[in-house]
Amino acid sequence: MPRPVLLFTGSWADQRLEELAAQAAEWGYQGLDLCCWGDHFEVQRALTEEEYAPAKLDLLRRLELEAPVLSSHRVSQAVCDPIDERHRALLPDYVWGDGAPAGVQQRATEEMIATVRAAHKLGVNVLAGFTGSPIWSYVLGYPSPSKAVVEEGLREFVHRWTPILEVCQECGIRYAFEVHPGQIAFDLYSAERVLDALNEREEFGFTLDPAHLHWQGIDPVEFIRRFPDRIYHVHVKDVAITLNGRSGLLGSYLPYDDPRRGWHPRAPGRGGLDWEGIIRALNAAGYSGALAVEWQDPGMDRLQGAEEACKFVKRLDFEPPPRAEEQAFR
Amino acid sequence: MPRPVLLFTGSWADQRLEELAAQAAEWGYQGLDLCCWGDHFEVQRALTEEEYAPAKLDLLRRLELEAPVLSSHRVSQAVCDPIDERHRALLPDYVWGDGAPAGVQQRATEEMIATVRAAHKLGVNVLAGFTGSPIWSYVLGYPSPSKAVVEEGLREFVHRWTPILEVCQECGIRYAFEVHPGQIAFDLYSAERVLDALNEREEFGFTLDPAHLHWQGIDPVEFIRRFPDRIYHVHVKDVAITLNGRSGLLGSYLPYDDPRRGWHPRAPGRGGLDWEGIIRALNAAGYSGALAVEWQDPGMDRLQGAEEACKFVKRLDFEPPPRAEEQAFR
Amino acid sequence: MPRPVLLFTGSWADQRLEELAAQAAEWGYQGLDLCCWGDHFEVQRALTEEEYAPAKLDLLRRLELEAPVLSSHRVSQAVCDPIDERHRALLPDYVWGDGAPAGVQQRATEEMIATVRAAHKLGVNVLAGFTGSPIWSYVLGYPSPSKAVVEEGLREFVHRWTPILEVCQECGIRYAFEVHPGQIAFDLYSAERVLDALNEREEFGFTLDPAHLHWQGIDPVEFIRRFPDRIYHVHVKDVAITLNGRSGLLGSYLPYDDPRRGWHPRAPGRGGLDWEGIIRALNAAGYSGALAVEWQDPGMDRLQGAEEACKFVKRLDFEPPPRAEEQAFR
Amino acid sequence: MPRPVLLFTGSWADQRLEELAAQAAEWGYQGLDLCCWGDHFEVQRALTEEEYAPAKLDLLRRLELEAPVLSSHRVSQAVCDPIDERHRALLPDYVWGDGAPAGVQQRATEEMIATVRAAHKLGVNVLAGFTGSPIWSYVLGYPSPSKAVVEEGLREFVHRWTPILEVCQECGIRYAFEVHPGQIAFDLYSAERVLDALNEREEFGFTLDPAHLHWQGIDPVEFIRRFPDRIYHVHVKDVAITLNGRSGLLGSYLPYDDPRRGWHPRAPGRGGLDWEGIIRALNAAGYSGALAVEWQDPGMDRLQGAEEACKFVKRLDFEPPPRAEEQAFR
Amino acid sequence: MPRPVLLFTGSWADQRLEELAAQAAEWGYQGLDLCCWGDHFEVQRALTEEEYAPAKLDLLRRLELEAPVLSSHRVSQAVCDPIDERHRALLPDYVWGDGAPAGVQQRATEEMIATVRAAHKLGVNVLAGFTGSPIWSYVLGYPSPSKAVVEEGLREFVHRWTPILEVCQECGIRYAFEVHPGQIAFDLYSAERVLDALNEREEFGFTLDPAHLHWQGIDPVEFIRRFPDRIYHVHVKDVAITLNGRSGLLGSYLPYDDPRRGWHPRAPGRGGLDWEGIIRALNAAGYSGALAVEWQDPGMDRLQGAEEACKFVKRLDFEPPPRAEEQAFR
Amino acid sequence: MPRPVLLFTGSWADQRLEELAAQAAEWGYQGLDLCCWGDHFEVQRALTEEEYAPAKLDLLRRLELEAPVLSSHRVSQAVCDPIDERHRALLPDYVWGDGAPAGVQQRATEEMIATVRAAHKLGVNVLAGFTGSPIWSYVLGYPSPSKAVVEEGLREFVHRWTPILEVCQECGIRYAFEVHPGQIAFDLYSAERVLDALNEREEFGFTLDPAHLHWQGIDPVEFIRRFPDRIYHVHVKDVAITLNGRSGLLGSYLPYDDPRRGWHPRAPGRGGLDWEGIIRALNAAGYSGALAVEWQDPGMDRLQGAEEACKFVKRLDFEPPPRAEEQAFR
Repeated sequence: MPRPVLLFTGSWADQRLEELAAQAAEWGYQGLDLCCWGDHFEVQRALTEEEYAPAKLDLLRRLELEAPVLSSHRVSQAVCDPIDERHRALLPDYVWGDGAPAGVQQRATEEMIATVRAAHKLGVNVLAGFTGSPIWSYVLGYPSPSKAVVEEGLREFVHRWTPILEVCQECGIRYAFEVHPGQIAFDLYSAERVLDALNEREEFGFTLDPAHLHWQGIDPVEFIRRFPDRIYHVHVKDVAITLNGRSGLLGSYLPYDDPRRGWHPRAPGRGGLDWEGIIRALNAAGYSGALAVEWQDPGMDRLQGAEEACKFVKRLDFEPPPRAEEQAFR
Repeated sequence: MPRPVLLFTGSWADQRLEELAAQAAEWGYQGLDLCCWGDHFEVQRALTEEEYAPAKLDLLRRLELEAPVLSSHRVSQAVCDPIDERHRALLPDYVWGDGAPAGVQQRATEEMIATVRAAHKLGVNVLAGFTGSPIWSYVLGYPSPSKAVVEEGLREFVHRWTPILEVCQECGIRYAFEVHPGQIAFDLYSAERVLDALNEREEFGFTLDPAHLHWQGIDPVEFIRRFPDRIYHVHVKDVAITLNGRSGLLGSYLPYDDPRRGWHPRAPGRGGLDWEGIIRALNAAGYSGALAVEWQDPGMDRLQGAEEACKFVKRLDFEPPPRAEEQAFR
Repeated sequence: MPRPVLLFTGSWADQRLEELAAQAAEWGYQGLDLCCWGDHFEVQRALTEEEYAPAKLDLLRRLELEAPVLSSHRVSQAVCDPIDERHRALLPDYVWGDGAPAGVQQRATEEMIATVRAAHKLGVNVLAGFTGSPIWSYVLGYPSPSKAVVEEGLREFVHRWTPILEVCQECGIRYAFEVHPGQIAFDLYSAERVLDALNEREEFGFTLDPAHLHWQGIDPVEFIRRFPDRIYHVHVKDVAITLNGRSGLLGSYLPYDDPRRGWHPRAPGRGGLDWEGIIRALNAAGYSGALAVEWQDPGMDRLQGAEEACKFVKRLDFEPPPRAEEQAFR
Repeated sequence: MPRPVLLFTGSWADQRLEELAAQAAEWGYQGLDLCCWGDHFEVQRALTEEEYAPAKLDLLRRLELEAPVLSSHRVSQAVCDPIDERHRALLPDYVWGDGAPAGVQQRATEEMIATVRAAHKLGVNVLAGFTGSPIWSYVLGYPSPSKAVVEEGLREFVHRWTPILEVCQECGIRYAFEVHPGQIAFDLYSAERVLDALNEREEFGFTLDPAHLHWQGIDPVEFIRRFPDRIYHVHVKDVAITLNGRSGLLGSYLPYDDPRRGWHPRAPGRGGLDWEGIIRALNAAGYSGALAVEWQDPGMDRLQGAEEACKFVKRLDFEPPPRAEEQAFR
Repeated sequence: MPRPVLLFTGSWADQRLEELAAQAAEWGYQGLDLCCWGDHFEVQRALTEEEYAPAKLDLLRRLELEAPVLSSHRVSQAVCDPIDERHRALLPDYVWGDGAPAGVQQRATEEMIATVRAAHKLGVNVLAGFTGSPIWSYVLGYPSPSKAVVEEGLREFVHRWTPILEVCQECGIRYAFEVHPGQIAFDLYSAERVLDALNEREEFGFTLDPAHLHWQGIDPVEFIRRFPDRIYHVHVKDVAITLNGRSGLLGSYLPYDDPRRGWHPRAPGRGGLDWEGIIRALNAAGYSGALAVEWQDPGMDRLQGAEEACKFVKRLDFEPPPRAEEQAFR
Repeated sequence: MPRPVLLFTGSWADQRLEELAAQAAEWGYQGLDLCCWGDHFEVQRALTEEEYAPAKLDLLRRLELEAPVLSSHRVSQAVCDPIDERHRALLPDYVWGDGAPAGVQQRATEEMIATVRAAHKLGVNVLAGFTGSPIWSYVLGYPSPSKAVVEEGLREFVHRWTPILEVCQECGIRYAFEVHPGQIAFDLYSAERVLDALNEREEFGFTLDPAHLHWQGIDPVEFIRRFPDRIYHVHVKDVAITLNGRSGLLGSYLPYDDPRRGWHPRAPGRGGLDWEGIIRALNAAGYSGALAVEWQDPGMDRLQGAEEACKFVKRLDFEPPPRAEEQAFR
């Protein structure tokens, strides 16, 4: 297995890290993609308590687990999103404050800068997360946004994220933005546009979430081929498209476990993704980062599933030939 | 041809009605689905000038055109949408006012009530339009809305639309809400839910827009079968799905004529819709209303296209057997 | 148009032939495929009244209609079917008699012999029809029939049909058996077997009913290629497969116009058949017989449909090159 | 593995139960779905010999095998089928008697009542089997059955089965009727109709046989969703659809191992069924009964196959989350 | 109809131009794509007889036919092909000479230069044709060609064609090379490579032959999008893919009319091409050249077919909007 | 596992046989399909050194490896191919000589005869290889070959190969010609034709290479059914079709590891082949020969892949029932 198989801890924040890490090691994982909520990784403590980050690393090291990636999806969402009540549950109290949008965005930005510094302290070089988006709500609605509105949205995104990316550059940290509905980019062409808006600055690349591309009709293989140098992190989770004439891809506001939806998140290998093609494309792109299982399958017990998922990813991953092999025959 | 073929005038509001109507008659249309913008149908004038509505009818009658449907998509959008700059271009100045959201919503509601009364004056019994939606922006984004947030959104919708529907009931007018992205319902199950929220009150039914169902993966035939008594109006326009691995169904904020999109509106018969199945389902549902061509094809000259579309719809439509035919053989 | 386009009158037996023929001529048909029920063609009268057949021909000739095919599906069904109440409605009283199965089968055989002779009097050389089957009910049921049971069924078929085919041979008439569910053959391999059981006697060939092959998953083009010399007649009607996860191909005993069925007969050109491929295969097979529209579409008015169908078939049919054309270029 | 994996012994009745049970235990099965033919379970002995049923249970218990289901497909077929020679091989001599249809049906009914009582003695609470059908032969044949004929067939079914179901009720036994070609119900809508005809009495539910739904074009997932409370037993076997333009779904009377057929029974996991979807739908329906392997693969050695099948089902089955899991993230 | 509909005369060279032109005009064509064989256009006469080209133009003008394109597929094939007996039938005697390969290639080059000059005399600005290829025979064979072999083949192509393209440049003529099996480019990526090898010189572009792209699995729409400025001519002909498990895409050396082939040339509109998409892509690319019907359908009489094809192309073609239309609604 | 799983050594000729054999045994292979290049099997030494063949066998026997098949693809290619520079790398110097085509072909024929005799010495009874082809380059090119050209090509093939096949007959060796692009037969119908040209002489049969059939659109199952008695050897390798609108099946001269190709060779089980169907068809055909892994996957490390492939084939293969099993139930 050429790449470390991680468990992304974001779906397990109800458990204490100590327990979760022990389980993950037992299931066979080689490391954790730590989330910045629950007790998994607390940014302010990491910055203010000298022993915090080393203690985390020590805990993991005893279990022979790596921690090459830190994830901050919740706070990053608030940086350039129009803030509303839904964000309260995502944010620490000190970021939410009185909930007045401008202040929340400002404090979220500061917290992200702190997160970059904390990541640096932890010794990771990839920070994964979202962006939020001032224009997401216009994506399919009515009236369609004018060209100017889209451009203004991108400008705002650049304006709000540049200070964070500056600190990334300073600390040698790459920000692995997860291309995802609800964000400034969610498909191949919006991802192109975002890179362009940032003048392709190197600190900013992508977390590949193939499941959310697949149900949109996009082939993750084409995405990897388009951005071979910008895949900074990979989430492994699957998706099943379950169209039957009545269900729809927009999901009818139904929760993930409702069979009337048109697509469903699934444990790795139990949906419709072409993992063979994805791994080959990652090999061709020279991706050498981690493969992090994001557990999200409302129809399967997560304890059974997380262990299976780890085995699945290990079986899936394979080595390309050491160099362009001379084709001896045919 | 059992059903009148109309031209929906919303895409032609840059032309004066007088000219457009003459053209439509020449192209073979049997009537118009008049929009409430441009000079096609001005609500306030219709209510205040005794001769306004009769003059419109007279104009059409001279061309042997019917006017069985009135359309008010622009103002209706503002009734329960979160208001922003995009709405300014949709609304008459007297509705936009100072643009403060609460006031705009209030004035939009009043304008819709006026529109119902004006429709009554015009003698139509179907008013078509949108709803806007307080929860559209949450449809695919992050974080997913909780059950409570969705329910609250529906309650707000009911609260804001009930006064308008009361006047519909009073005037004998059916509101044909177009199930469409950006609205309170956009697919089969959200449409179920909206009917339920309104206690299935009879004034409220649907404008079938099969194109926007199709690209979501929903079969318009199943939609018709699910709501046979609630199809109050039908828009005829087509859609082509053009996925190639890179394009996506969410459209990347690209305009309709950009080939990188994953779906494209098309002239009737030039996309992927199963019109045969749709007409048979409308026949089975006993739908006897109009079929209104909504012109929306950024790749085709609209003058050439509108005439072709009229012919297409006439060729498409056919009579079911007069009664349950005794099957004479086999 | 190289081949005559006929209207098969079986679905119109509630109308008097005189009226129907006049309509058919007006719709553009070039002839009729006359059924032996209603007043369209009465076998016993044709045999006993010298003027009967000539009068029919005269009626058609005045309308410039041909009558190259006679059809006897109803009586032929009773020749080797297990007789039950359903057959009563199919048979003339003098064939049904007291309904005791052995007698009914015997009288049906005699009536078929009479039909061959009557066809000869009428001057046609193709008689179309069914066979019935002693083993149809075992086709998918439980327990599966043993090899011996199937062979015994075929022997019975041969035994019962040989006397009729003898008279066909005597009169120069080809029997165009319609491969169809409920009959001794219903698909490609059962058709092979039936020809084999009859030692491929020349009087016995097939009416191609592409619709009933299609929903079974069989390509009519392959059927034509397999039996190029045995296509003696062609029925033109279409079929739509409407599977949606709940509907099934066996049809749930639902009538043809129930949308819950998995397939539906349709007017020609309005279903899923590859007519282009069928016509090319007929051309390649050298088929020069008629193309007879069998009207069977429970969702469409038959008066509108029959005219459209005639135009469809004329447009569909085309000439192959006069001889193996020298390919001048590429 | 949440559900017991059984071997249905019906395909192994040529072996003595003692041997078969030992093998099954060795292969890893957790129980048997005992058939009432061969020496596996003899109804009359069970009723008359006090030690018979306990001895069977004892045999199984020594091998740590359960016996939660009894199967009586052969006799149940004769209860309302039109009786012919094929049934002789299915029935014990004392049920066949002189073979006169009315008597056979009567004795089959009595034997089924005896079977219910014997099942009760054995301590099972699910009895699986067929029904036979007075109208199966009309399903696709000609002429189509009238509405009245279908209704009469259902009434006869209800009439003949009610006495048996009364005894089921008395004994606390559920009858798991296998929806299957040849039976009173064979697809989703005929299953609806049968439940309706029985006023949805609780003793009567279904054995899910997903393979026979699949080749008809029906999605077993939709079947489970339609009848979540009526899945009383599940057979695990697969099917491959092998259409190539010439083969057909009705199978041409060819045996299962003939490659010219359009579908073929296959060992579990070696055909086209979506087992992932089926297990999730069973989980969603709360099905907690057994999963019984029905061995039926004419292209594979059954000794090799039965062991593999057991492993396949164990690997397939998985636990849903303990309760509606709070979705911690996204 | 925005673009002239031509008949490419290459498939009709057995007829005298005078007759063919009269027929073409009657069928509705607006011009001819003249081939340089038969008596349609004789290069040496055009260069040496002052009245030859004017007389041809005069003939066409009397029939109101244009002649905007000249085609020289046969001689162009010999420019860089390995010469063998098959070429003899393609070439005038004075080009074939003694058939020694080097001499034939040299004389073919000279004849092509003469053809460019003759085209100039005729007043056309598009010359269509092939290239031949030194490496075609390696395309799928064994052993695969090394990178060096492919590069050497391209160099040879450039070397041989440069003198011809120099004269094109001098005369203001664009060479519309038909991307086609047997040529230096036959798919999208080989076309890229050829343009690159020629340093994208402007005289060299493509004749789009969508049929030969389609059966290779390539979407002609993607081809047009890749080379919007290089589509210099368009051939309209269709293709049907007829795979059935036994037929193959390489065609088994079978002639076009053999049903065992895996693909078949077809009259326009009678195959599998997405003409709607092709026309829209040509519109988007700003292609304003001709649409030339290339008749090649071995299953259809060419007299019937050529007329139908003309109507088909006229119906197919349509105008894009005059300018980027302001989207008035939605 | 009923059939021996071999490793075809042709793709490993850069390794010494001694090492390779040891690895193969360790990976689980049961034998080798030895190639006649590298040091794996040297024909002239085998014929002239008494101990050569026995020593090879001894080496394998010590590792418990069989050697039932010898492969001579490289020299066999030159027997009736038009010789060019590409062949130099394939041939031993003593066969290439001065490279003059006629001499090379002659010496290749002699070397093939020697190979047959050497195979006999080694004790194998299957010799696998290619044929070359005088007409391959015409397969899709322009101009199409006339019927006469194809027949002449076949005659030349028969002429050149008959001497070799005579020696096969003499030695009791079957020649397993690999149906493959670049050869005299490459699909089902060309394979038919070659057998016919050879009067179906028994020494000549096929190596099944399902991957090269699949991307041509041919079902390997149909190939096996068509030639059940002529499958003399089987290569196990897979292929992925990766069409995306731009890539094409002819491959653009791109190497196998270029993602722009339309198909890619893949490790067994990692492509699109229906192995289940292939094994069942081989079982039905009674094939009892070897299954030889041909390693050809430019995206996977061959050391990891070869071991996995061996396991894959062992898992894949299974026993058919010992005899036509009596179907005990249903």
